[in-house]
Parts: sequence; C-alpha cells; structure tokens
Amino acid sequence: MASKVIKGGTVVTADLTYQADVKTEGGVITEIGPNLSGDEVLDATGCYVMPGGIDPHTHMEMPFMGTYSSDDFESGTRAALAGGTTMVVDFCLPSPGQSLLEARQMWDNKSTRANCDYSFHMAVTWWSEQVFNEMPEITKQGINTFKHFMAYKGALMVEDDEMYASFKRCAEIGALPLVHAENGDVVAQLQEQLLAEGNNGPEAHAYSRPPEVEGEATNRAIMIADMAGVPVYIVHTSSEQAHEAIRRARQNGIRVFGEPLIQHLTLDDSEYAHKDWDHAARRVMSPPFRNKKHQDSLWAGLQSGSLQVVATDHCAFTTEQKRYGVGDFTKIPNGTGGLEDRMPMLWTYGVNTGRLTMNEFVAVTSTNSAKILNMYPKKGAILVGADADLVVWDPNKEKTIEASTQQSAIDYNVFEGKHVKGLPRFTLTRGKVAIDDGAVKTEEGHGKFVKRDSFGATNKALSTWKELTAPRKVERTGIPASGV
Amino acid sequence: MASKVIKGGTVVTADLTYQADVKTEGGVITEIGPNLSGDEVLDATGCYVMPGGIDPHTHMEMPFMGTYSSDDFESGTRAALAGGTTMVVDFCLPSPGQSLLEARQMWDNKSTRANCDYSFHMAVTWWSEQVFNEMPEITKQGINTFKHFMAYKGALMVEDDEMYASFKRCAEIGALPLVHAENGDVVAQLQEQLLAEGNNGPEAHAYSRPPEVEGEATNRAIMIADMAGVPVYIVHTSSEQAHEAIRRARQNGIRVFGEPLIQHLTLDDSEYAHKDWDHAARRVMSPPFRNKKHQDSLWAGLQSGSLQVVATDHCAFTTEQKRYGVGDFTKIPNGTGGLEDRMPMLWTYGVNTGRLTMNEFVAVTSTNSAKILNMYPKKGAILVGADADLVVWDPNKEKTIEASTQQSAIDYNVFEGKHVKGLPRFTLTRGKVAIDDGAVKTEEGHGKFVKRDSFGATNKALSTWKELTAPRKVERTGIPASGV
Amino acid sequence: MASKVIKGGTVVTADLTYQADVKTEGGVITEIGPNLSGDEVLDATGCYVMPGGIDPHTHMEMPFMGTYSSDDFESGTRAALAGGTTMVVDFCLPSPGQSLLEARQMWDNKSTRANCDYSFHMAVTWWSEQVFNEMPEITKQGINTFKHFMAYKGALMVEDDEMYASFKRCAEIGALPLVHAENGDVVAQLQEQLLAEGNNGPEAHAYSRPPEVEGEATNRAIMIADMAGVPVYIVHTSSEQAHEAIRRARQNGIRVFGEPLIQHLTLDDSEYAHKDWDHAARRVMSPPFRNKKHQDSLWAGLQSGSLQVVATDHCAFTTEQKRYGVGDFTKIPNGTGGLEDRMPMLWTYGVNTGRLTMNEFVAVTSTNSAKILNMYPKKGAILVGADADLVVWDPNKEKTIEASTQQSAIDYNVFEGKHVKGLPRFTLTRGKVAIDDGAVKTEEGHGKFVKRDSFGATNKALSTWKELTAPRKVERTGIPASGV
Amino acid sequence: MASKVIKGGTVVTADLTYQADVKTEGGVITEIGPNLSGDEVLDATGCYVMPGGIDPHTHMEMPFMGTYSSDDFESGTRAALAGGTTMVVDFCLPSPGQSLLEARQMWDNKSTRANCDYSFHMAVTWWSEQVFNEMPEITKQGINTFKHFMAYKGALMVEDDEMYASFKRCAEIGALPLVHAENGDVVAQLQEQLLAEGNNGPEAHAYSRPPEVEGEATNRAIMIADMAGVPVYIVHTSSEQAHEAIRRARQNGIRVFGEPLIQHLTLDDSEYAHKDWDHAARRVMSPPFRNKKHQDSLWAGLQSGSLQVVATDHCAFTTEQKRYGVGDFTKIPNGTGGLEDRMPMLWTYGVNTGRLTMNEFVAVTSTNSAKILNMYPKKGAILVGADADLVVWDPNKEKTIEASTQQSAIDYNVFEGKHVKGLPRFTLTRGKVAIDDGAVKTEEGHGKFVKRDSFGATNKALSTWKELTAPRKVERTGIPASGV
Repeated sequence: MASKVIKGGTVVTADLTYQADVKTEGGVITEIGPNLSGDEVLDATGCYVMPGGIDPHTHMEMPFMGTYSSDDFESGTRAALAGGTTMVVDFCLPSPGQSLLEARQMWDNKSTRANCDYSFHMAVTWWSEQVFNEMPEITKQGINTFKHFMAYKGALMVEDDEMYASFKRCAEIGALPLVHAENGDVVAQLQEQLLAEGNNGPEAHAYSRPPEVEGEATNRAIMIADMAGVPVYIVHTSSEQAHEAIRRARQNGIRVFGEPLIQHLTLDDSEYAHKDWDHAARRVMSPPFRNKKHQDSLWAGLQSGSLQVVATDHCAFTTEQKRYGVGDFTKIPNGTGGLEDRMPMLWTYGVNTGRLTMNEFVAVTSTNSAKILNMYPKKGAILVGADADLVVWDPNKEKTIEASTQQSAIDYNVFEGKHVKGLPRFTLTRGKVAIDDGAVKTEEGHGKFVKRDSFGATNKALSTWKELTAPRKVERTGIPASGV
Repeated sequence: MASKVIKGGTVVTADLTYQADVKTEGGVITEIGPNLSGDEVLDATGCYVMPGGIDPHTHMEMPFMGTYSSDDFESGTRAALAGGTTMVVDFCLPSPGQSLLEARQMWDNKSTRANCDYSFHMAVTWWSEQVFNEMPEITKQGINTFKHFMAYKGALMVEDDEMYASFKRCAEIGALPLVHAENGDVVAQLQEQLLAEGNNGPEAHAYSRPPEVEGEATNRAIMIADMAGVPVYIVHTSSEQAHEAIRRARQNGIRVFGEPLIQHLTLDDSEYAHKDWDHAARRVMSPPFRNKKHQDSLWAGLQSGSLQVVATDHCAFTTEQKRYGVGDFTKIPNGTGGLEDRMPMLWTYGVNTGRLTMNEFVAVTSTNSAKILNMYPKKGAILVGADADLVVWDPNKEKTIEASTQQSAIDYNVFEGKHVKGLPRFTLTRGKVAIDDGAVKTEEGHGKFVKRDSFGATNKALSTWKELTAPRKVERTGIPASGV
Repeated sequence: MASKVIKGGTVVTADLTYQADVKTEGGVITEIGPNLSGDEVLDATGCYVMPGGIDPHTHMEMPFMGTYSSDDFESGTRAALAGGTTMVVDFCLPSPGQSLLEARQMWDNKSTRANCDYSFHMAVTWWSEQVFNEMPEITKQGINTFKHFMAYKGALMVEDDEMYASFKRCAEIGALPLVHAENGDVVAQLQEQLLAEGNNGPEAHAYSRPPEVEGEATNRAIMIADMAGVPVYIVHTSSEQAHEAIRRARQNGIRVFGEPLIQHLTLDDSEYAHKDWDHAARRVMSPPFRNKKHQDSLWAGLQSGSLQVVATDHCAFTTEQKRYGVGDFTKIPNGTGGLEDRMPMLWTYGVNTGRLTMNEFVAVTSTNSAKILNMYPKKGAILVGADADLVVWDPNKEKTIEASTQQSAIDYNVFEGKHVKGLPRFTLTRGKVAIDDGAVKTEEGHGKFVKRDSFGATNKALSTWKELTAPRKVERTGIPASGV
Repeated sequence: MASKVIKGGTVVTADLTYQADVKTEGGVITEIGPNLSGDEVLDATGCYVMPGGIDPHTHMEMPFMGTYSSDDFESGTRAALAGGTTMVVDFCLPSPGQSLLEARQMWDNKSTRANCDYSFHMAVTWWSEQVFNEMPEITKQGINTFKHFMAYKGALMVEDDEMYASFKRCAEIGALPLVHAENGDVVAQLQEQLLAEGNNGPEAHAYSRPPEVEGEATNRAIMIADMAGVPVYIVHTSSEQAHEAIRRARQNGIRVFGEPLIQHLTLDDSEYAHKDWDHAARRVMSPPFRNKKHQDSLWAGLQSGSLQVVATDHCAFTTEQKRYGVGDFTKIPNGTGGLEDRMPMLWTYGVNTGRLTMNEFVAVTSTNSAKILNMYPKKGAILVGADADLVVWDPNKEKTIEASTQQSAIDYNVFEGKHVKGLPRFTLTRGKVAIDDGAVKTEEGHGKFVKRDSFGATNKALSTWKELTAPRKVERTGIPASGV
C-alpha cells in the first residue's frame, strides 16, 4: 500500500488539538508533524483529522424470529464508514444451549464481508458448567467482554444467580461484563396487560418498557457486579433513572460505564404517537425513546463523564419486517439504524451547540470505547503506530438526512429530515480511503477482527481493592458444640 | 369492668401535648379532660400518658427448622406490655402450597393466649390461582397486608413476576404489600462462597447480607409496586442504601413506607466480631446490624418522615437454638428479641438526646403504624371512643437492661447492659392494667384480633392517579397489513 | 352567639375521616358526634367538614413604592373566607432603622378591619443591638416567627452575618426564622444586565430570578440555621433546586420546612411569554412561575412530606399598579392574588387527581401550618375546645374562576378560566357563618389576633441535640508559650 | 545540554502503559521508542516513567501577619522535585487596593530562585474598575486563572456581587475562576463564639470551619459561575458536602472542577484532638482535616472523575510561627506542607490499594492539571516535543516519612511516620536530573515561568451554549403606557 499524507488539517484527539499532517503507510500511522510528504495527498484544509469512530454496539445480520436484521457486515460497515465510523463491535449470540465457541464461529463467518475492522462481544444467554469453562477460551480468542440480557424473558434473559456466577467468572478471567438492563419479568407482565387492554400499537412498546424498569435493572446489575468484584458496562443507557443508578454507584467509587445511544440523545417518545403506524413501528427499539428530561440527563452525563461512550445499537429491520408486529406490538422487531448518522448527529447537536468540546466528541465516539474495551491505542488514537483508522472531518459540510441516499439496506431512516453540519470529507480504514468526499470506495472483506486482551487496568485495580477489603474471619476459641 | 381515671399526667399524642386526665370504661376511652373521677385512679403525676405502643412486626412461635421461635403469644405479649407496647402485628406464614385460609387458622390458634391485642399480616410465600383467589377472602377477614420475601431462596422467596402479580392483586383488593427486601439470589451465592472459604462463623452472616443487597432489593420492590399501582411497605429497613431507595422514590411522589428496627437504630455490626460465639450468634438476624453511618441515616429518616415506624421483628431464639448454626452460620436461626425494650430504648436514644420530639416518639412507636395499617383511631390514638391501650410513661424511671429480669422466654437480651431512662409506670390494654409499676398483671387470652379494612385513603388516591395517567392508545387509521 | 350544629357531613381532618355532626358555641367547637342539636343547623349532607384553611403567608396593604398592595385586611380576609380559608398570617415589615415594636403597632392598626383571625410574622429587615433586644419583646407579644429576606438588595435584604446573628437569637428565644431565599446580589446583577441588553419586559423578571438563585439561597439559609442551631422555614419554595436543598437537609436530620404556593403548583412560566404585556405583568411575583419539572417536584414534596404547607403569598396589585413597570420590569410590583382560590385549586388539582388524600389536603392547607407556627390545636383542628374555624366543603360544587365575581379588590385573577370542582358550602370563622352557599356574610373587624408561643417542641428538641453535640475543648497541659 | 535516554522502563501516562525508552534533549522529549541511545543513560529498569507531577496549588513565601510562609521558591521546589513533582502553580496575592500587575511583579521576583518550572494564578482580593481593566492584561501575560476567596472576612474575602462581576469578566476574557469556598461570614461568627466560650485551642479551628460551611460556599460559587457563564475550579475540596455540590452541578452539565488535597485524602480530624498543642497546631489549615466519611468521598471522586486533581496547598509554617496562635486559634497561621509527600502518599494509598490505576494516578497528579490550566501537552504529557519534566518511579522503593530528612524548610511533617512504597528514582526538570536516586541535584533558578493561554476549549464550548440558550425578549405590540 502506498503512503498517504493527510495535509493541512487540525488534528483533534481526545485530549489534543493541534496543526499537523498525518502520514499513513501499511495501514498504520507512521508520522505526525508539519510538512509531511507521501505517495498520495489528502487535502484536509479546513478540516479536523480525528480518530475514526468506534461503535461499540451493533447487530449485523442478527437472527430474529426466523429472519435476520437487514444490515449485514457489508452494508453495515459501509454505512459506518460513510458516517466516519471505522470500527464496530458486534455481538455473538449463542442460542440457549449452544456452545460459545460455536457461536463465535458463526459470527466469524458473517463478518468476512466487513469493510472495516470489527470485534465481538460474547453473549451469555444461558448458564452451565460448559459456559463457565468456555469463557476463558473466548478471552483467549481476543474477546474480553460478555453481554448479559436482563430482559427478553424466555429467550435471552438470565436470572440474578446466573448473572452473579457469570460476573464472578468475568472477575476471575479479567473480562468485562456488559448488561442490557431492563427488568424482563416486569416487561413481560406489562406487555401481557397492555395487549389484554387492547393496547397493541407501537406506542405500547414504549408503555411496556418505562424508564423505571430500566433504572431498576441497571441498579441491580451494578450491585451484582460490585458483589462479584468486577467492573460493569451498561449498554444503551436511555433514561435518567438508569443514569442515576450509574452516577450513584460511581460516586461510591464503583467501576461502572454507561453507553447512551445517539437515538436517545436526539429523538424522543413523541415519535410513537405518530399517526402513521409504520413511522412509529420503525422507531421501536429497546429501550424505547424517552422524553426531553432524559435527553438532558444523557447529555449531562457525557459532559461530566458519568457516561462515557455514544453507540447506536444498530440493528436495522425493514418496514416489511417491522410489520410482523401489526396487531401485536410485541412482535415488532426491536431495533433501529444509526451507524451512518451517529457522528454527524452528535457533532451537530453536541459540538455545534457547545455542549461538547471537539475533544470530548472524539472521546465519546472513539477513544473511550477503545480504552474501556482494551484496544487503545491501536484504535481510538492518533499516534505513531496506531491503526490508520481516521476521519477527516469537514465542519462546514452539511446535508439533510434522507433514507434515499443512505448506505444502510433498509428503506427508511429514523433521523429522516434532520439537518446536520459536520461530515466526513475522507474516512480511512487502516490507511485505505473508504469514503472520498461522498464517494464510497469501500472494499468488501477489508475489515479484520481486532483482538482485545483481558485484565485491563481497571479490572486489576478493582481486584486489588476487593482482596484488600475482603471479609475476614473472626478467630475464636471456645466455640460451643453444635446444638443440632 | 370498672371505670378508671389516669390522673395528673400530661397527654402526649402524635400531635398534641396537654394536661388532662383520661378516663376508661369498658375497654375504651370515655372521657378526656380536667378533674375526672372514676372507680379506680391511676396516678400519672410527672408522667406522660401516651397511646400504647404498636409493634407492626413480630414473629411469635414461628415455625423454624423443626422447632419454633421461643416467645409465643403469651410470653411475647407479656414482654410487649412490660415495655409499654399494647399491640403486635404478627405474620401468618403459609408453607409453600398451603392455603392462606388454613395458615390464618393456624395463627388464630396460636394467638388465643395473647395478653394484648394483635393483628396479622398474611405472607405470600408461593403463587398460584388459589393464592390469587384467596387473597380477597383474607382481606374480608380483616387482614389488609400481604408480606413478600425477596430473600430466603428455596424457602419463602418469591420471584419478580410473582411479586408483580401479587402486588397487582393487592391494588385491586385495596391491600398493602409488605416486603422483606434482600436479593435472595445474591445472598445465597455469597453464603456458599463464604462457607467455601471457611468463613463459617456468625460474622459471616453479616458478610453474606451487605447493605448493597438490601438496597438493591428495596429499589426493585418499589419499582414493582409503582408499576403495579399500589403503595408498598418495606420492613426492617436497616441501611442507608435501602433508605436511599425509599427516599428517592418518595421524592418522586411514590407511596412507600419504611420501618427501621430498634436494633438497627442502636446496635452495630461490631457485635459480630465479638470473641464469644454465642454473643455474636445471638445477634444474628436479617438484615444484620450495620455501622454508625447507617444508624445516622435511619435516625434522620425518623426525623424527616422518610421512615415512619419503629418495629422489632421480634423473633426470639434461645442460645441453644442459635447453636444449631455452630460450624455453619447459615443454620443459625435468624432473629432477636426486642419487644420489651423497643420503647425505653427509643425514648432514651431518641427523645432524651433531642433527636425526636415526644410527639414524634408516639408517631413512630404507635400512631403511624395504626394509620398505615388502617386501624387508626381505634388504635394509636387518645380520643374518646378509641381503645384504652395506653401507657403511662415515667420519664424519670430508669433501669439497666438485663436478661435475668426480662419477660421474654429466652436466656439473653441483645440490649444487655444498656441503661435506659424512661419506662412505663402503667400499661393498659383495653382498659386493663397489665403493668403496674413493675408488677406484671397480664391476663392470658385477654388479647383480641383487630380487624383492619382494605382500601385505605392512600390506596384509593393512588388508584385515582394511576387511572388518570394510564397509557392511552394512539388511534390510527390506515394501519398496514401484518407482515407475517 | 347561638349554638350551631353542622349536620350530616363527614369530618375530615389531617388524620381522620368519619361521620359526625359538629356543634359550635361561643366561637369554639363544643361537641362532635352523632345526632347533635343546636339553635341553628347547617346542612352538610354530601359535604366534608374540615378545619378552615390557614394561609401562612399574606401581605395585606403592604407598603410598596409609595403605594400599597390593593387588598387590605378587609377585602383580603373576605376573599380568604370565600375560598374556605379562615386565618391568615401576615408580615410586619419594619423599614430599615425602624423599631420592631413600632412596626407591630402599624400592622395592628391595619388589621382591625379583618373579617377572620390572623397572626403576624415579624420581618428582620435590618440588624442592630436594638433589633436584638426587641426580638424577645416581640415573642412576648405572641409572634414567634421572624422573616429574613435574602433578596431585594438595598431594601429588605440582610447579609449572611446578620442572618446568622438573627437566627442565633431566634434559637435563644425559641423562635422560628423564616426566609425568602433568592440570592439578592446575583438577582441585582442579572436585572442590570438584562435591562442593559434591552430585555425590559415582564418575561425578563423570570429571567432575572432563575431557579438556580433560589436553590442557592435556600441551601445557604439552611446551612446558616443549622450552624445557629435553630429550625428554619423557607417561604414560597418554587423550584426543584430549592426543594432539593430542603430534601437534602432533611435527609440529614436537619429541621427545615418548605412552603410551596398554589400558584407555583398550578401555573407555569409560559404565562410570561404572553403577547399581552398586562397578562404577563400581572403574573410577576418572586420567585416567578416555573415549568412543569418544578411543579412535579413540588407536588411530590407535598406527597412525601418534604414540603409541608401550601400558601399564596397573596399580595395583590391592580393592573394600574403593575404598569409602573412598563419599560422596566424591575419596577413592576411583585405579587399576585390567590387567597380565594388556594383551596379550590388545590382540591381540584390535588385531591381530584389522586395526588393527595383528603387528609393530606387538610394537613397542607391548615393543620401543618398550625403545628409549625405553634397554634395547634386552637387552629387547624376539629377537636372540642378548638376554635370553630371550619369549612363545609362540597366536593360537587363547581365553578370557573373569574375576576368579575371575586372578592379581591383587584381587576384580574391569575387563575382566570380555571375550572374548579370542590368549593365551600359554608365557611365559619369562630362559629360565625361568613360564607353561606355563595352569599358573603363577613363581618368587618370580627377577626382577632392569634398569639403564638415560642419554644415549640421542635425548637426544644433541636436545642437538646445541639447542646449534646456541641464542640468540646481538648484539655491539654504543657501548652507552649505564644510565639508572638 | 547533552541528550539523555531513560532506558528500560515502562512509560505510564494518563492513558497509556507501554515499554519504551524516552530520550530528552534541550529540555524537551525528542524521541520515544525501543532501543534509544543518548549521551547519558538513566536506568529505569523496573520503574515507571511518568510525567512529572504538577501541583496546581502552592504558596511559597506567602506574606502572612508580618512574616512569610517558610518555604520559598527555592526550598519549596526542591521539596517538590524530591517527591517527583516538577511544576508548581503559585498564587499572586495583591493586597486590597494593590494593582494586579504590581502583585505579579512581586511574585516574579520571588520565583527567580525556583528549581523547577512554575506558573501563577492571580487572586482577586478586591474589586474595582482598575481590577476589571487589569484582568485582560494579566491574561496577556500568560495567567488565565483568577482566584477568589469566600473566606478570610475582612482580608481576602470578596462578596457575591464582586464574585459575579469578576466571573463575568473571566467569561469575557476566556479565563477560569478559582474559588476558596468557605462561608467567611459564618466562619467569623463561629470563631468569635468559640473564643467567647473558651474554645481557644487548635481543635477549635476545625470546629469553626465545619464541612457545612464549605459545602454551602462551594454550592454558591458554582451557581454564580453558572449564572456568569464560565467554568469554575474549586480549590481544596475537603468534604462530602463540597464534593456533593460539585457532583450535583456536574450531573446537570455544569463545568466545574474539584481539587482534593493529599492531606484531606489521608489524614483525619483526630489529629486536632492530639494532647500536644504543637502537634495539633501544625495541622491547622483551611479547610481543616475531616473524618473518614469525607475521605471516602474524595477517593470516590478521583475514581469517578467528579474530582480531577490532587494538590497540596503547600504553605509551610514553622512550629514557632504556629505558636503565634497559642491562646487564640484564629492566630495560628493556616497551612501545612506536603509537596515532597504528595506523590508517594497518593501512590501508596491509591495505587497500591487498587483504588486508582496507575494511569489515573498520572491523570490526577499531573495531566488533568495541565489540561484544566491549559498548558497540556507542554506539561503533563510524555510526547515528542513536550517538556522533559519526568519522574522515573520505582514502585519498590520505600521509606518512612520523617521531617528530619525532608527538603522543606520547616521542622516537622504532617505525614511523619507514614510508610510509603513507591518513590522517584530520578526526577527530571526540563531534561535536567534534579533528583538522582535520593541525591538532590537541583539548580536554583533553573525553573521558568510557564505561560498559559486563555480561551481553553471548555470556556469556548460553554460560551457557545450560553449564547444559544440566552434569554430571548418577547416581542410585543400594544404595550400599555407606564402607570407612573
């Protein structure tokens, strides 16, 4: 691969802003400084050169009700790159009873078509000695994160004792548990009740998953992780209640991370009251959109650091698929798109308004994910030796979001009509220009799996502390004989 | 029964303090005012005349591991009266699979020997259509409160969906759910782990039930009640974490009540580090004693009204019974005494220090229980027509608490050695003098069951609000055909 | 005065709901029970018989900018009675430098025309040895509450050291300090800045007094009271920020009371954006109306007990007076009416929605004020011997609020157009029927001053606690010689 | 200056941990990587190579009561280097009425003897048009931070309106206000009262400055900054109350920073109860030491990011100077040392216990200060081009802290007897080895002033947001004529 120089831009990282050219060669950054030259020059005049976005939460070609989510690793990563995101972390989802190793294999097969790099989280959807034994095998294969669902009762959901056992195992093997936090028992009861009352439209999806059930489960997951002695990462934190649980834990020194989605930051629950069934159903995801109070809470979390990363939970279903749920909202496939829009939307509503600095933008779209998931500075950094996953961001480029021009395979876009200012001029994946001023030049299969080691610094520090403060036996003499 | 006049005292109720004589006849208060006369005169000079204490949480003759808690309704209510408490509310505990009505009958049989009035809570220890159907039968019989255990996995514990269903049923029949809030799954895991590590002494009981597991369960119970649309009452709130969950709910307008125990207010977890195994084991109860931080929190709760009542969870086991757990702390019968000491201890540590006013003392020891459990003003009041359950309280009477002189059937007292100032001169149960300046004049079988109606004011108001804010269906035309 | 019997109603007090007739004679309640007879009968069929409302916060004929608030003690108390309120507590406001005793005399003169009973708070608008010395004189005259303004810089405002000194004095003489909590320095700066920017309309009044400045001052007042060892009462708590400060203090056991106004509970700040200048200016009061988030917070405070009383801060200015501030919002007289509407509005938006029980309604409109201000049970109670200040409340009586039919002297009503359900059938002031099914039968000068003693129970308990926990000198020997 | 290579160590920065050699030349870092060579080699085997510490809060040779704090820029920076700190930020303190520019000049004169680099904060100790006008002159000279004292009434203290005006000015000129947050009015009153009660010992210093007065002032400062539209930095955050105010603001998206001191993290208020007057007096500083509850809060703040930097407020007075306050605690010079011990103490109590990761250690001792004060990455970084301010940290080196061997000019050490593990092997200041395995090789006058620019990223973002959300005038027609 020939060398490239990104010239004339301002480098913006999670903690620095400075004028410099950036040179890439062989897929990595080889030089940063003034007046660089190379085989090819990319003009970054007037632009910010930033680490490519990392979306820590996507579902490509996810099996669902006999079908699959419509973006596969090809279209999904194409959409990602179009929006400045150069890496996604997807979820291997074993069926109940299925080997984790087998699930890993299945996802390896799907991901061969990826246009950009990717990694996996492994889901713990059931519990047994086999799962317990396979977990360290999985970490050896470069997956250090295990996802747990507290919702989807009868399907993916795990019980508290299983979650405790799995978290404890994570502590031992230096892994990080992830949690989808909603109380599945209560959701199931509310669903049943709403349907019984004739509340079968998409809006009932939101009624069945109020912020309270998310807040409760978040609080519970954190407690269980604390007891098990392991950090924990809460996916798609959508509400003040969940954020409050996270904040409260953090203010007691507990190691917990929270991940709001761009959807929850910028869209609200009035969408579900839309008179067009399709419009409402297309926005069905779990947790559902919330109101402005919750949005304000999430933004403040990004500002203060109590929430660390912005994801999409990209899981795209077509309108046709959404219509499986006509007459029964519980059958509407859960999920929305967002990969292409995450960075422009966050820049527009975050940086352009002054809610976030540019450095904070980089931190929450890229660097923090890389650190928490333990792949920094290979990813998420602009440093010599780091992967040349870069976005050349033009703060003056604007557009109105439209499904008709998007990369995603589906026929609509939940951000339809939003005007964004701030878009990629170039997106580079390991040095390859995938997006060139609007032109898509992705290469199917270019993407590689990114290994992520266990025993990150936070895991190790927490283990030290837990050992130091472990229960101590009171030594006694003269203990009486047992009464039994 | 001849009339009696309590003369020369100061009447102290939950909201009034004034000089007056109180006359009783036929078991009720018939007159309040100056210069009353009657067949018998009780000298209350220098004393406060207060509503007799109500302990909303006791376990007399409770079945446990093939034996029973050692205070039965006779000795237990005798201890109560000796300490100024004139009513207890005990728990009917059906075995899993047992009819609620049958359990009620069993407790009726035990309670025939009671020296003072009593009522029952009914426990929901399993869930089925039968339980669902029997619940309104139980309320018709005068029991409007249903207890749920989130701990004691494999025994009394109910799951979240069962709890939701039962709470929903409570909402329908105007009853109040009670909750023992500890995460039973996590407790079971911690117990197993501690035993595996050789931590088998009484102190490990406390290690296995840290404040975090109580706080979590409290938070969860409140959420479930909120979703089910019913107020909820958390028994034995022992920690800042649980109190915080209660406070946080209340500040959102949720109707939740919290009940600290006198033990948690005045004793701490250093007791479990005692070198004498018996000493530590005698203090084993769930939740365990906590540290000063938690005590401060509970006191502030009583001062601010975020916690409403002080109970004992009186469930007395002898040292011999406690020794069932030598070598395995999970086999130590859970429970302590306290009925005789609740009021003197709370007066000494609460009123004498200025933390509580006298009126607040009456509120938290008697009146608030009567209101929340819906038997006010028959109980908990000094009003004409109210039951003559009264205590003539001598603020200058003092003693050091000693097991050797107590009424309880057990051989020790967790408050041994505490000096209290403020004790009953007389205790009257429905007009009968049961305690006369230290002399015990109780009458076995004098106590009667107190019926408590459903649909208290808080239940009704909450139902109105929940109906007003219930999910509304979005009316749509042109709904597409189902995709399936 | 002939005896009267209120027949056929349901008595509703702060803690009881029961069927009974109520007999009054000589201005007091003489009997409560079934089947009473008297010289005159008031039919209460279908009605609730409740303690008359107490408004703890009014300003009649208050001097302002060379004029006076337009409701004097005659029209103001007439409006009060028409709405079911039977007592007001007004403020004696000494001019800077003026004797407290002299101010008291001035207000005595104004109040001679009152139609119902009243009491006074004394304002501490300046500080000196004279004020210090006169404070106990004032308590001897039956005023146990002292108001402090943290706003109105250059006029009523006192500095922190003055407030501390006055609070300390209150602690000594067993009085309760009241506080208007807004940071006057910051308000003055914001006013100046807004005017400089051309923001001179009534909406700028709200901009100049955001919730943050109220929250800050509330927090500060509470800290100062805590240091001085005295309970404190925050008037017109209008925002979540102020309520949060109160809650946070209470959860630490600090004795603080909060008083939302009916205006802040039911009206919002969109009123200031009204295109009609007069409409907006008529709503100018301090603190200004807030948004729904704040309203929810206040309602939850009433439900949970973190806020205790609902007042009006009735201080009525005519449209003509409001127009003093055309072109300069800082000159718009601050104040709105509300005395006639407080109880029907709170019933409609509180009881009818299920947010409050009827007993809580009585507590927050009457009984709690009586207790906190230390005049219970003379006021705020339905007990034999209590003043016959009663309202016979018809829950089915409805009306739309209109200025054209109100008692207040002003030409508009901030609640104009609100439909209320729940209105007085009769209002009695010390046994006299002042409102008779809509007909106004008030008697000028009927009202009497109500003395309120110092050293309430909360003051005494707090003093005990503060003494117990006071700093203790460390006894040392061998102290070195001073270095100076 | 010859080139140096630090060989064989592990580079640890705020976000990276990796094996590399570090080469310095001409005072800056010129290369980072494997197998570097240079004129001189420093053996870092088994060590961590970290950015040198930055202490953002020191007072060298500070004028006080006719004398000066005993460490001047020479001994103070020597102590700093001995402990791994390579830069200090001191305070220019104008006397009331004195020109800021003149004060700057005075501090320039003192600092000529510094052994390491330094910068200044400018204090705003009085307010006038002159101060207003001089502030931008000061920023042009490279000082972008202005300190405000809310305590020390009658001396350094400023009033709320002055603080607002100064903060507003900071917003305009892109500067960051710093605040010493204690309510000076209340402190003065408590001092007077304690002295009057005979409480004149050093423990009364702590009694006179309870956490409540700090929490209140912190809350107030934050509100005023929020109103003025500027970020704010709270110095020496010592208590849960102050930290709570900071957290609460941050969770609302407010830009506020908090700085705990190493003393408050590791020492407690039992020191003031010491029987030896000197012992207690030597620990007198403001705020005073707190108890374990507060320490836990501060540690959790560092873990969660709600507190960002650890400082010392190094202001050393000899025992002789401390004795000025025999018989009157208010005359004890306020201040303690700590510069030499900050990093070893924090490593021992933070990293060795697992409370902090090594990266967090670097962040809070160095990098975060550099970022907040806007001198990153010149300081606080290990990057090519950054100043070669480095510490080679040996995690196995241990010692017991003793005054007898310290660099500071005073005769005692508040950490006396503490055993630390983790100490500098080498400390380099701009490439010069100042500490060489215990040997002190500092060079008087080597230190240079570090300019810090205004308009940091956070200031700019906040200004954008404040402009976007500024009050908007309601446009009206038909405004009535003024009533006046």
